[in-house]
Amino acid sequence: MADYKAPLKDIRFVMNEVFGVEQLWASLAGTKDTIDIETADAVLEEAGKITASLIAPLSREGDEEGCKWNEGVVTTPTGYKDAYKTFVEGGWSGLTGNPEFEGMGMPKMVGAQYEEMLYASDISFGLYVCLTSGASLAIDAHGTEELKQKYLPKMYSGEWAGAMDLTEPHAGTDLGMIRTKAVDNGDGSYAVTGTKIFITGGEQDLSENIIHLVLAKLPDAPAGPKGISLFLVPRNSVDENNVVGENNNVTCGSIEHKMGIKASATCVMNFDGAQGWLVGELNQGLNAMFTMMNYERLSVGIQGLGAAERSYQNAVAYALDRIQGRAATGPAQPEKAADPLIVHPDIRRMLMTMRAYNEGGRAFSSYVATYLDTAKYSDNAEEKKHASTMVALLTPIAKAYLTDRSLDCCIAGQQVFGGHGFIREWGQEQLVRDTRITQIYEGTNGIQSLDLMGRKIVANGGKFYELFASEVSSFIEAEADNADVAEFVAPLSAALERLSDVTEYVINSFADDRNAVGAASVEYLELFGLTAYAYMWTRMVKAAAPKVGSDEFYASKIKTAKFFFSRLLPKTVSLAESVRSGSEDMMSLAADQF
Amino acid sequence: MADYKAPLKDIRFVMNEVFGVEQLWASLAGTKDTIDIETADAVLEEAGKITASLIAPLSREGDEEGCKWNEGVVTTPTGYKDAYKTFVEGGWSGLTGNPEFEGMGMPKMVGAQYEEMLYASDISFGLYVCLTSGASLAIDAHGTEELKQKYLPKMYSGEWAGAMDLTEPHAGTDLGMIRTKAVDNGDGSYAVTGTKIFITGGEQDLSENIIHLVLAKLPDAPAGPKGISLFLVPRNSVDENNVVGENNNVTCGSIEHKMGIKASATCVMNFDGAQGWLVGELNQGLNAMFTMMNYERLSVGIQGLGAAERSYQNAVAYALDRIQGRAATGPAQPEKAADPLIVHPDIRRMLMTMRAYNEGGRAFSSYVATYLDTAKYSDNAEEKKHASTMVALLTPIAKAYLTDRSLDCCIAGQQVFGGHGFIREWGQEQLVRDTRITQIYEGTNGIQSLDLMGRKIVANGGKFYELFASEVSSFIEAEADNADVAEFVAPLSAALERLSDVTEYVINSFADDRNAVGAASVEYLELFGLTAYAYMWTRMVKAAAPKVGSDEFYASKIKTAKFFFSRLLPKTVSLAESVRSGSEDMMSLAADQF
Repeated sequence: MADYKAPLKDIRFVMNEVFGVEQLWASLAGTKDTIDIETADAVLEEAGKITASLIAPLSREGDEEGCKWNEGVVTTPTGYKDAYKTFVEGGWSGLTGNPEFEGMGMPKMVGAQYEEMLYASDISFGLYVCLTSGASLAIDAHGTEELKQKYLPKMYSGEWAGAMDLTEPHAGTDLGMIRTKAVDNGDGSYAVTGTKIFITGGEQDLSENIIHLVLAKLPDAPAGPKGISLFLVPRNSVDENNVVGENNNVTCGSIEHKMGIKASATCVMNFDGAQGWLVGELNQGLNAMFTMMNYERLSVGIQGLGAAERSYQNAVAYALDRIQGRAATGPAQPEKAADPLIVHPDIRRMLMTMRAYNEGGRAFSSYVATYLDTAKYSDNAEEKKHASTMVALLTPIAKAYLTDRSLDCCIAGQQVFGGHGFIREWGQEQLVRDTRITQIYEGTNGIQSLDLMGRKIVANGGKFYELFASEVSSFIEAEADNADVAEFVAPLSAALERLSDVTEYVINSFADDRNAVGAASVEYLELFGLTAYAYMWTRMVKAAAPKVGSDEFYASKIKTAKFFFSRLLPKTVSLAESVRSGSEDMMSLAADQF
Repeated sequence: MADYKAPLKDIRFVMNEVFGVEQLWASLAGTKDTIDIETADAVLEEAGKITASLIAPLSREGDEEGCKWNEGVVTTPTGYKDAYKTFVEGGWSGLTGNPEFEGMGMPKMVGAQYEEMLYASDISFGLYVCLTSGASLAIDAHGTEELKQKYLPKMYSGEWAGAMDLTEPHAGTDLGMIRTKAVDNGDGSYAVTGTKIFITGGEQDLSENIIHLVLAKLPDAPAGPKGISLFLVPRNSVDENNVVGENNNVTCGSIEHKMGIKASATCVMNFDGAQGWLVGELNQGLNAMFTMMNYERLSVGIQGLGAAERSYQNAVAYALDRIQGRAATGPAQPEKAADPLIVHPDIRRMLMTMRAYNEGGRAFSSYVATYLDTAKYSDNAEEKKHASTMVALLTPIAKAYLTDRSLDCCIAGQQVFGGHGFIREWGQEQLVRDTRITQIYEGTNGIQSLDLMGRKIVANGGKFYELFASEVSSFIEAEADNADVAEFVAPLSAALERLSDVTEYVINSFADDRNAVGAASVEYLELFGLTAYAYMWTRMVKAAAPKVGSDEFYASKIKTAKFFFSRLLPKTVSLAESVRSGSEDMMSLAADQF
């Protein structure tokens, strides 16, 4: 496997030249006095170094060794414990944490770039850190002042880790069916009892304590999703001086044997009257969870981006090094026995596809981050609301579209290696296995699509969609006389029109057909994702075009944009046609005929 | 994992009702007196039983245990040795073998169906048997009478297995660079020396001997692919009485640790002056190898089909059993806590997609088999030539399109399981890992696409293509008044026209642009595959429509056809547009800018 190189040049291009974060941060009440571009840049520079030098080298062996379970004790692979200690001592666990409780207070825009580097180095390792950030976020947003004081500083420092306990054996997507119970102890705490599965980092040997956020129901709670509450349950109890004590009846029953992310412990967790504290309101647990979900889901999208970037870098190194066959236009290296793979158009097709999706994905996740940050840091109510709405609309796309393209890119990167791509030591097949989970957890991509098509589009009659469409339309109008982007604006405009038409089609169909949403959703999300990437690519061209003479980087940006538009964007046509076929042919077969 | 059920009803439909094998076999000189439908059917019935009961149960544990290497000795997983013995004693290794040398002489049409069942049960196990069939085929086609007499009966009986030794560390796709040497011993034999990698079944503990077919070069051979010869090299020498003796300086240096097919030993083979015999003419080794390749490549396509069928069956069982959420149209099982997954449109979309591709793939591989059989068994020179040309044209599609769709289907089948799809014990993730190799070995799918677009289309100015186009056009014309197929004939006709236009576009582009073939190839193959499946689906509708009232099976066939046409075929539009974007945007980036 090639050494990982953090793509800092492209990250800076996106942040500074495409999205102008300096101006953005200066304009937001919550960042203008606290965040400056130099600090952020130094943080990212350091993130690039530590992920590449400390974490990336663990990934291959971590996959081979995997996690071990023995009588409730989980052991992570060799090297993880030391690396975790060094890493969290750098403060990375609290990078975007609340400064009131000793977090570093960096905006999501910085967090998103850091996460890409972390996940590109090793998804398994990254999960231990990022689950803690996610759990902290929920506690910060919904916990009492007491809970925050007690837990957040220790979690930001990484001394204690976090875990999210949602799924049960019979209840995954359908959380309304969970059976874990919480009984009021009468002292402000609850006794939590039940079994949770698929708990990432539910147990490990990295941190002194693990703080579980557990979905459970009170005995008298309403049935279904409206009776679910969220509880903070530390694995080990913590006394008033924050000294970690005995096990709080929280045990790991086993770990799963999985396709990938083998160095990440996926745990069955048993709660046997464990003492817990309510986070947020009673029966509002799903709401409390979902506050954090927008961050987590973007984060999972970025996991996919990280794996895809790693796959691209490895494939490029191999394509430049491996000689096989001759260029169709005549020998490129006549002095050698063969030419490097990179002379072959089909190898180029795979590399350019990966590049176009990855750079588009990096821009798109950063774009979502600008709205997450605006929603969080603006003091203008209207701006805040607009940004929150955009986050709600774009988040399922960020999660599903980035991870679906990640699988494509990891498969393509593996294919570049030919037979060697199937061999474990080269690392390409691990990326396929690792990234595959990103399409499944944190709400499957099918569920993301339903969330987009149902809740975010059809439920409000397309109002959220109109915000996106009018933003893109305004951009198109504003650039009408910009010769730099002219060749891209026309197809962007056509794609947007296609997306708008299809949006209307589905909204209208739903009036007569309850299955219309589910029938359209996956292809609709892909169509939306492609259109959004076309918008990102046009914005990148706008930023790059004036500087083409100064640095080959900018010329390459334009060339990659051309590839995206000519080769990948045409898929919108067939996706639209597939959506328009409706639900009938999908639903007509009798269940017993399958 | 659900128990595997051989899809015999659909197999019989395809063979008998779509392709009318009884009439076909009666019309061919080589089959009319030897093959009857009853025998063939009994063979397939038995194949369904033995694959499901003997082999399928080995697959999951075989993956966990994998093959072991110790000092040159390779041990297959527990149970493989006994199962192999039972299986080959049933004669399956020689099913399509030459009856002159104790083969069973079944046509490829029967072999193709049997192989689907074998591979659906376990690709790893299937490879040990099918590599022997492939090697036998090359020996039968190109070996001397003496070699055939000596080796074929033992290989057909499975007592001895076969292996194909092509790849070397520095030479995969580009076999012209191989370094393995063969020196004339002056006694009719050669001393073969060199190292081969990625040798499936190169060593194992199943058979008494292993017969390697090795590509090597004589010291004075012309450079490049025209200096390659093919040698038969037994692992252990065989005396004049066919008694197996000492090791013939053929040793296994190690086995690969791979993403999938872990129960199949992928070997590094060292030949150290091993005694071998020429197969075919000197320096014509690639030709001899390619004779067999058309069979092998179809066989690899069928591996993909087998895995995809297994994935479909498992996903259906899970979707009927697992309850989660409610139908959009209202509770389907109000008495239960939730409805089965199969009520959800997006689950349907995945199941119907798998079904449409698998049934289309079964028809397509059977269609190619009719041409393979006609080419082999016809005594009419013109018919033979036509069939051989069709085989040449369709084989790369059968290999690449079936395996690419197999990955799609295995990914979809895994996705139906949600988080459980990522867990090894459920078996769905293994199918993804196992089928992934089918896109890589036996010529990567990129190489298949180049073979199609370059050698089979552009090189002859589209003549081969015209044979296919005119067959489909004749069918469309013949069915013009058939109301049963009317709704399918129009889109089939449009897809064919699109494919014909794109074919012409690429042929014309190539005149000015040597990269045009490589730039178009992968999308072109997919466009061709989709169009060919549309033809298959229309032929299936034609066969099924008159019987719709008699059996729900036929009605389901029509419904699945509708889904294929409305949901999947539209992709042809965007594929055509992608191909028309040419090579410029793919090739424009400087190599040092990647």
